[in-house]
This record gives sequence, structure tokens and C-alpha cells, in this order.
Amino acid sequence: MSKTGAIRLFLRSCSGGVQAASRQYSTTPRCSQVEAAAVGQKEELRPKTALLMLNMGGPRNLDEVHDFLLELFKDRDIIQLPFQSRMGPWIAKRRTPSIQQKYDEIGGGSPIFKWTDLQGKLMCERLDKLCPDTAPHKHYVGFRYAHPLTEATLEQIEEEGAENCVAFSQYPQYSCSTTGSSMNAIHKFYANRPTETKLKWSVIDRWCTNPFLVKCFAENIKTELEKFPAEKRKDVFILFSAHSLPLRQVNRGDPYAAEVGGTVQLVMQELGFSNPYRLVWQSKVGPLPWLSPATDDTIKGLVQRGRKNMILVPIAFTSDHIETLHELDIEYAQDVGNEVGAEHILRCAAPNDHPLFIDALVDVASKHLLGSQRCSEQFLHNCPLCVNKSCFASKKWFRHATQTF
Amino acid sequence: MSKTGAIRLFLRSCSGGVQAASRQYSTTPRCSQVEAAAVGQKEELRPKTALLMLNMGGPRNLDEVHDFLLELFKDRDIIQLPFQSRMGPWIAKRRTPSIQQKYDEIGGGSPIFKWTDLQGKLMCERLDKLCPDTAPHKHYVGFRYAHPLTEATLEQIEEEGAENCVAFSQYPQYSCSTTGSSMNAIHKFYANRPTETKLKWSVIDRWCTNPFLVKCFAENIKTELEKFPAEKRKDVFILFSAHSLPLRQVNRGDPYAAEVGGTVQLVMQELGFSNPYRLVWQSKVGPLPWLSPATDDTIKGLVQRGRKNMILVPIAFTSDHIETLHELDIEYAQDVGNEVGAEHILRCAAPNDHPLFIDALVDVASKHLLGSQRCSEQFLHNCPLCVNKSCFASKKWFRHATQTF
Repeated sequence: MSKTGAIRLFLRSCSGGVQAASRQYSTTPRCSQVEAAAVGQKEELRPKTALLMLNMGGPRNLDEVHDFLLELFKDRDIIQLPFQSRMGPWIAKRRTPSIQQKYDEIGGGSPIFKWTDLQGKLMCERLDKLCPDTAPHKHYVGFRYAHPLTEATLEQIEEEGAENCVAFSQYPQYSCSTTGSSMNAIHKFYANRPTETKLKWSVIDRWCTNPFLVKCFAENIKTELEKFPAEKRKDVFILFSAHSLPLRQVNRGDPYAAEVGGTVQLVMQELGFSNPYRLVWQSKVGPLPWLSPATDDTIKGLVQRGRKNMILVPIAFTSDHIETLHELDIEYAQDVGNEVGAEHILRCAAPNDHPLFIDALVDVASKHLLGSQRCSEQFLHNCPLCVNKSCFASKKWFRHATQTF
Repeated sequence: MSKTGAIRLFLRSCSGGVQAASRQYSTTPRCSQVEAAAVGQKEELRPKTALLMLNMGGPRNLDEVHDFLLELFKDRDIIQLPFQSRMGPWIAKRRTPSIQQKYDEIGGGSPIFKWTDLQGKLMCERLDKLCPDTAPHKHYVGFRYAHPLTEATLEQIEEEGAENCVAFSQYPQYSCSTTGSSMNAIHKFYANRPTETKLKWSVIDRWCTNPFLVKCFAENIKTELEKFPAEKRKDVFILFSAHSLPLRQVNRGDPYAAEVGGTVQLVMQELGFSNPYRLVWQSKVGPLPWLSPATDDTIKGLVQRGRKNMILVPIAFTSDHIETLHELDIEYAQDVGNEVGAEHILRCAAPNDHPLFIDALVDVASKHLLGSQRCSEQFLHNCPLCVNKSCFASKKWFRHATQTF
């Protein structure tokens, strides 16, 4: 991949979006602050179990775009640049205006903190009832490239003195460049810290077949299908769109593509295979091969073959961000759709705060807390053709941390 | 892809294997003959519903290898050669000796007819009880490149006067080059026939998430896992191996890769994610890119990284044939394993006549017969970037045939 290609990729792949008014999230307080405010002056209960919700994050306002890009270009798990310590900041600075413009077009920032915080709050309320042995539960948000950064959140969790900490990936399907990078960040934090963690660690690394997640997607798709006239409904093509990956990474054994395929099949089974559908891949950049077919090429191909009605489903995102609000809504549904003469291209809602999605989080977390498997063997083994040294060290650390009782 | 590459591919991808003694299947009678013999002189009941079990087939003995290759190289749905009518027979003749040698090494022929016939017989016995409205049911075997050929079986079904015919793909995951090719063969048969079919047609095109299929794979994997010493068991790497496909085909929207991913995730869920695992791809040939990582490269990569115990699971095959008996057992588990110094590489049994696999067939077929969906919209729509004219005509025919009541 050309450097420019790689750079454009990561600018796309790791940025967030905002649903409503500009900068409305810029002053959103951290979850702990929200809770502290809710109980007024009353001292907050010390959490017994921390649920660390890991995601990429996104700039909450235009002022945060530069720092977000800076963090992104530091991450050697996702991008390797020559002279990265100098090249990264240079690219971040250079790309800031164009990325700010995209955020501006979707309202001024990313809603991913708002959604993650709300999801965590709703989840923990129910976990306290379902899992009294590990209560009180408290959610923490750990983003990879935006505030609150994983490292700062880890400091907070250590300070607040929980006994257990669940590293809960908010990506239902595992990729080395998403969940893997977040997990490696946790390991790096502790590798650079003089004292060992006393937390009893466990890991939720993937949950792509969770039945509530599947039902949530199916319900959201049904809602969109009902917007089409009855006589056209069964011909509406459902395009499950997931962020693409370079084949170089897939070919080393990154399991992401197969896991996204799993979610897609289950959602269609839930819908009784009511419609034609395909899994397609968005956000590819650069000349090298990535997972295909691409979402935009597929839209064009369908319209050329007379299939002019479709629904785009962001199957690997659990909250709205720039790939749903800008890429799917503006670049594909609107721009590509108009260009090729599509009739209707609707976009299925991201899970966000759908009650079935909260059920999914509660189901995944409660089964984890009540079960005996603290970390899957799948996560603890490198990819069969892994060449990333960080992964070897990180997995060793997690094996130790999740087997210390 | 180079011509040679394409040719080697199809020689590999479409050939079968035999489990037991050489040529034991060469005299196996057709299913209808088996049944006729069973009832002696008594006239056989006219079937109300024909279940046409579609698969690739394989030569039952060494004498059939040449004709098998000849049929294969005729199929423009799977391979396009210049001057195909002359090139095809030439390549078939030239390749016959080396393919015969492979069949010789696994006992002299393919057991795929034996297994398909037995599977169909066991399925129909139970369908008669479960679905009295469509009884009596009779299974027919329709192979694409070996006896009994789909065209001959269609003649037989028409002659025997069933009312309904279910085109039941024996590939749980759909690919244009497997199920698609068999379905196109049905259409071509009727396109060349002077009289229209009076059969009430329906189609089972994919069943990759069937719970009994999933349980069958999980049980077979557990059986293999138990052969490892307890202290090594949880580190055994499970490699789900499926036949690879050229990316050119995947990139047009062939849904196979995503569907195989679906089966893999469900099997691992059934196993409680007990072991590390990956979906890998076998049988690639030629220099052009195919679905990766390759099974043999993955075995080498794992052993190099100290993971020396593994199980190979043929996740997209329902019966043993040359890809399990020769490629997985001899070329990978034995030859590659020895070359790189693996400890134990076991191969999980193909479903064959496992009771849970018969449950899967019965579950899929009975739900289809009792349900209202005669053909999925997924099957009736071309791939978004399809360029195969046969598919357009075939899907049009199936839409008509499955909507005529």
C-alpha cells in the first residue's frame, strides 16, 4: 500500500461522526463525573467490577480532530510508517482541515462517546441485579485515539480500586487492528508502569453471534424494509457493509472477515432469508487489494442490473460515527445513489441505544461474569502468520493477568 | 489466472476420493435400482416428491476418471477456456493419469455416491413420517461431473412422474461455482427440452447455519480433541479448511466466504470457544490471488510459532472425497506435518452418515416442505457484479418454475 493510501485509510477508518448539533458532545462529562453528579455530594460506592468498554473513539468536536489524528498515527499496530515519530505528526497536521470538514458536514463531531457512555450506564444498572456477586459494576470508556484515552481510564480504574476489570471490546467482530490494538494498548500501559496491577482481569474479545445483537440488527432492518412499498419490499437488496481490511492482514490470519460473515448469516436467518443480501466492504483506500466487493461498486453494479432499491446495514459498528453518518449516508446513499440512478437507498440505524442492543451487552457481560472462562484461548493465541511483536508480548501478559486469581 | 493454474484448480476442486477398497463403488447401483431390488417384483410406489440431491460427484473407479474430467472441462460456469470444445478434451486426456494416481492412493475412487445415496435414503425414510402431505418422498442423486449426471437423473424424475421436485444443494454454503453451476445445469436441461416440466419445483440453496449441521461438526471435533492428552487439549488449534475460490469471483459478490464464516462461528459457539481456531482455505492453484490464508501455509506458520498440535476440519464438505482423503490427510496432515515438524495433526471426520448430519438433512428438508418459501430471494437474484449470462437465464427460469403452482 502506498503511504498516502495507508494514511487515507486510517483517517477514514478511525474517525467518528456526530448525529445532532455541532459540538454538543464537547462538554459531555466522563461517565464517572456523570455518576458523581447524579449522587450529588454523596460518596460514590467503590466499584467491585469495572467494565472497560474499548473502542476506537472519535473527536467530539472540531478542535479535537488534530489530537485524534495524532494518536492514530502513533499506533504502530494499525499503521507502520518510516520515521513514524516525525511522519505521524506531520500527516496529522496536514490532514486535519479536510477531516474537520467531514465532521462539520455531519454536525461537528462524533457521537461515539455519548453512545458508549449511555450503553455502559444502561448495562451496569442491569448487571447489578443479574450478577450480585460482582456488584457494584461500573462502566469506564477507553478509547484508542480520542478522549477518554484507554491509558487515562486505566489510571482511573486503578485509583478507584475495583477488584475485577473486564476488558470488554465494543467491536462484536475481532480484528487485530481494532480489538487487538486496544488490548495491546492495555498491555503497553502496564508494561510501562512500575507496579503490577492488582486487578483480577478478564477479557470479552468477540461476541459476533450474540442472539440479541442479531435480533437488534434484524429489527432495525425490518424497520427500514417497511418504508418501501409492499410490492417492492421483497426485491430490496440488503447490503451489510463492514469496514474493509487490507488482504495482507487477512492473509496472516486476521479473523475479522469470517466473524462478520457469521453475524450476517445469523441476521438473515432471523429475517427468514426474506431478501437478497450480500456482505460488502467499505472505506478501502490505496491501490493494494483489500476485502471486496466494495460497498460503492456493489451499489453501482446492482443499479446497472436493475436492482434500484437497497438498504445499507453497518454490521460491524455498534454506534453511529463518521462511517455511518458520512460515508454511508452522504457518500454512498446520496452521492453514489444519485450518480447511478438508484431509486431508494436507505441506511439501517446503528445499534446505539436500541433496547435489544442493551440486552446484547447485558447478555454478553452477564454470561462472562457468571461463567468460568476469563479469556478465550482464541484471543490468547497469535494469528497463525502473525509478525507483530507487540501481539506476542501482549498475549503473554493477558495470559498471566487472566490466570492470576 | 494462467490456464495451467485454472486447470490444476479444477482438477483438484472437483474430484472425489474413496475411503475403502479400490473400485468398490464401481458397481454400486443407482438409488432407484437399489429400491427396486429391495421390493423385489413388487411395483414401486410412484413418488409424490423427488428430492434431487445436487453435488459435484467424483469418479467411482479409475476408469471413470477420464469422463469425469471431460465433464468438468465442459462447464463454462466453472472454467472458461479458449476453444473450450477442443481444449477441454485435450486437457482431460492429458491429466487423467496423474489424477488416477491420486485416486489410487486413496483406495481407487470416490465414495461420494455411496454417501449421498445413503444420506438421501435415511432422510426420505424420516420425511415420509414428518411430512405426510408430500409423501412418498424419493431421493435422487444428481452429480455435475460424474454418474449419475444431473441431466440423466432429471430424465428419470420426469419419467417416474413425481408431482414436486426439490432441488436440494448438498453444499451447505452457496458458491456460484458449486450450487450455482448445478442449478444452471437444471435450467440448461429444460432449456434444451421440447416440453416444459410439469413438476412443481422448489429450491434449497443454502443451509450453512442449520443447528444440526453445526452440532454434527462440533461433535466430530470433540471426538478428535479427546484424542489429545488432557494437558495439551486446550492449545490444539482448530483449522476449519474450506475449498478456496479465486478473488476475481469473490469480488463479483460470490457469497461463499461469508457463509463458510457463518458455519465456523456457530460451530465454535457450540464448542464454547474452547480452542483457538481459524478459517483457512485449501486447494488454491495458479499465481492469481485466492481466498487466504492457505491451509498449508497456516500449518507451517503455526508450527513455526510453536503450535504443533492441530485439527483440520473440512467445513464445506459433507462427504469424504479427494480433498479430505488425499489433500488434508496425505498432503497436509502427513507430508506438510512431517516437513515442518508438527506433533499431531488430526483430521475431523466429514459428516458422511453421522446421525446428527442426517438430522440436519431432515430438518432442512422438512422445514422446506412444510414452509411456504419455495425459493429464496437470495438465490433468485444474481450476484451484484455478475457477468455470467447463464446465471441471468437460469434465475429467470427458476423464478418461473418455483412460482407456478
